[in-house]
Amino acid sequence: MKILNSNDKNFNEEFDKLVNRSNLDMQNVMSIVTNIINDIKNRGDEALSEQIAKFDRWEVKDNLAISTDEMKKAYENISDELKNALQIACDRIKKYHEKQLEKTWLSFEENGSILGQKVTPVDRAGLYIPGGKAAYPSSLLMNALPAIVAGVKDIVVCTPAVEGKVNELLLAAMHLLGIKEAYKVGGASAVAAMAYGTKTIKKVDVITGPGNIFVATAKKLVFGDVNIDMIAGPSEIGVIADDSANPRNIAIDLLSQAEHDELASSFLVTFNDQFANSVKDEIYAILPTLSREKIARASIDNKSAIIVAKDMNECVELMNALAVEHLEIATDNAFDYLPRIKHAGAIFLGHYTPEAIGDYLAGPNHTLPTGGSARFFSPLGVSNFMKKSSIISMNKQGIDELGEACMSLAKAEGLGAHGLSVKVRFDS
Amino acid sequence: MKILNSNDKNFNEEFDKLVNRSNLDMQNVMSIVTNIINDIKNRGDEALSEQIAKFDRWEVKDNLAISTDEMKKAYENISDELKNALQIACDRIKKYHEKQLEKTWLSFEENGSILGQKVTPVDRAGLYIPGGKAAYPSSLLMNALPAIVAGVKDIVVCTPAVEGKVNELLLAAMHLLGIKEAYKVGGASAVAAMAYGTKTIKKVDVITGPGNIFVATAKKLVFGDVNIDMIAGPSEIGVIADDSANPRNIAIDLLSQAEHDELASSFLVTFNDQFANSVKDEIYAILPTLSREKIARASIDNKSAIIVAKDMNECVELMNALAVEHLEIATDNAFDYLPRIKHAGAIFLGHYTPEAIGDYLAGPNHTLPTGGSARFFSPLGVSNFMKKSSIISMNKQGIDELGEACMSLAKAEGLGAHGLSVKVRFDS
Repeated sequence: MKILNSNDKNFNEEFDKLVNRSNLDMQNVMSIVTNIINDIKNRGDEALSEQIAKFDRWEVKDNLAISTDEMKKAYENISDELKNALQIACDRIKKYHEKQLEKTWLSFEENGSILGQKVTPVDRAGLYIPGGKAAYPSSLLMNALPAIVAGVKDIVVCTPAVEGKVNELLLAAMHLLGIKEAYKVGGASAVAAMAYGTKTIKKVDVITGPGNIFVATAKKLVFGDVNIDMIAGPSEIGVIADDSANPRNIAIDLLSQAEHDELASSFLVTFNDQFANSVKDEIYAILPTLSREKIARASIDNKSAIIVAKDMNECVELMNALAVEHLEIATDNAFDYLPRIKHAGAIFLGHYTPEAIGDYLAGPNHTLPTGGSARFFSPLGVSNFMKKSSIISMNKQGIDELGEACMSLAKAEGLGAHGLSVKVRFDS
Repeated sequence: MKILNSNDKNFNEEFDKLVNRSNLDMQNVMSIVTNIINDIKNRGDEALSEQIAKFDRWEVKDNLAISTDEMKKAYENISDELKNALQIACDRIKKYHEKQLEKTWLSFEENGSILGQKVTPVDRAGLYIPGGKAAYPSSLLMNALPAIVAGVKDIVVCTPAVEGKVNELLLAAMHLLGIKEAYKVGGASAVAAMAYGTKTIKKVDVITGPGNIFVATAKKLVFGDVNIDMIAGPSEIGVIADDSANPRNIAIDLLSQAEHDELASSFLVTFNDQFANSVKDEIYAILPTLSREKIARASIDNKSAIIVAKDMNECVELMNALAVEHLEIATDNAFDYLPRIKHAGAIFLGHYTPEAIGDYLAGPNHTLPTGGSARFFSPLGVSNFMKKSSIISMNKQGIDELGEACMSLAKAEGLGAHGLSVKVRFDS
């Protein structure tokens, strides 16, 4: 794992590479994904069955839907310990997201005119949940609960079933959440089916959820025809720590991101040289003990870095430039730095807040912007499943007060009927 | 202008065509726009100058930027009437958008843990404002003011300068808004330059603003590398009216949308046959008096419709299915129908609220979802220029309470370091 020092003469160059780490190379898969989408658009369920046979190696025969019975059975088969853990996660995630609910508001003018904003859930949301090795029930909780809190009536889940099998814990989580509609289909095919509809899968309004480069590219291509949450890449963590932190704990936190994916990135930014080296030593001491050692080692060796800054100010500055998905501030008085943190998907404060607690059950969403996109994207939340309508209600007095200014502007823009539509009310 | 009756035996078929009116055919321009973007990415300012020479027919020589002097001079040259109208619009749009500002919040658990959500403006926003015949200063106000209210530090405007000339009223509005950075560049080139940066134009985080099919396609292609507001098509109005409305007023309102664009759509939904015919007659009586008659007539004849439903309930239902950009409810007691309106960009209530008042100065934004995308997109607003970060701060007691459940879930998902990162805090 490389250690960069902000005093190094080639630091800026090396650091810029980290800042520009996002490398979702869609151009290579764009034409494949475009063809998949067009095929689903043109041939619907027939194309869907063929794509499933090809990618997931099983034959669809009226068994695309997952029954609520399958979900229930899976739930009954998991341990009480897991039932309890899922329930705690469910309750806490729901409670947090309820605090995000925006309300319809109205404001009143002295003349009696009314302005406002109406907030309405979308009719139908499609949740994409990866399958196979990366089938995480936590992803389902994090996608479904904001939609449930938003009040979305129709929630549909798509998840790939490699050789026809769906992860049992995922099925159990579907039961717990009360999911009524789910299909065994994944990848770009699932995104296309939800975006444009087939005979079996009805068109949705919003598609959310993580996925590989094919899913990400499909989401980008259908954006506009439906809404999507964000385009996400490999997971990341950035830790700001000083010597008030336990180097072993920080090493584990960095590894907890590295174990996700060979392409995941872990960054430590500190101003203490010795602390930097201790964390590095701990990382390599712990690596061989991990079940996912190979993945984590690839991420640590190739995609991660420790950065030694000159002081805490510079740590914050560098971390803002990295705009990481998960940011831990593992110092005493961590809240003191919060005002200056501008760009991060989620901020974990203090010595008792490992990032993993946020992955499962702290409450906030674990679907977060990656690759520097925390500069402009937000965590998945209730607002992804709602939309707004402006409200305007003028009365005669309002038109009398504003009519002339409005007609001036319409005239200046050369839009006659616009002006006339105000004039007829003004003159009435 | 066709009149459809919901009793007609082919009504569903005809109505479905209106519902599926969105036809932003990007596939035809996708490769052209991809090439423009790649060219800007690879050759920066040099490519920009060539594209401007080609599309806007003028030669760039260190004069890409619009100076604040040019803006000031333009402002000084407009009439006091227009200055006043712009000021009223500015003040009212600002005041409305201030009500949209979301606040950072924290919530506290009994054990002392803290959860919350931090709201931060993006660092740099790029506003795309069309030029030429469709250069509307109101578009600048509607894009800039939400960014100003959000607290965005760097706001940059791009607008095409056909033969080197920028619309004077647009320049004047830039002065009024205090715009400091603006460039004479339009189309996909402007979007690419703002998304990826050139030597002259620094990369932005968010791009908003209307534009033609090339601009819309470019925005879709750069989405993910920056955020964008929405992908918008031709403008639309839908009016629900009964015989309490003045047919002439409704006709003018429908025409005020039609005069924008040959591809614009105007829909009247009513349950009164005679009223429907009166509005149609008024439309054709007024058409010859409009300066933009040709455009409006094409829109009315080819893209618009009057629909006669069986009652007010069906009117609301059909209008929800259309999910129009602008929706007028021109009836007595218009607020009574508001609860059931699910999908519309902006809702104009009552007999004194022509849509045009919202285009200029009622306060709400005039950048609204089109083509049925009001099912999932929201009006442009302050939130387009801000993003959120989750906040999580656990203490030892919090970890003690949640640690076991969290470790169970990490174990079930096979993520060892995740579990370990909680265990080391739990055991400490």
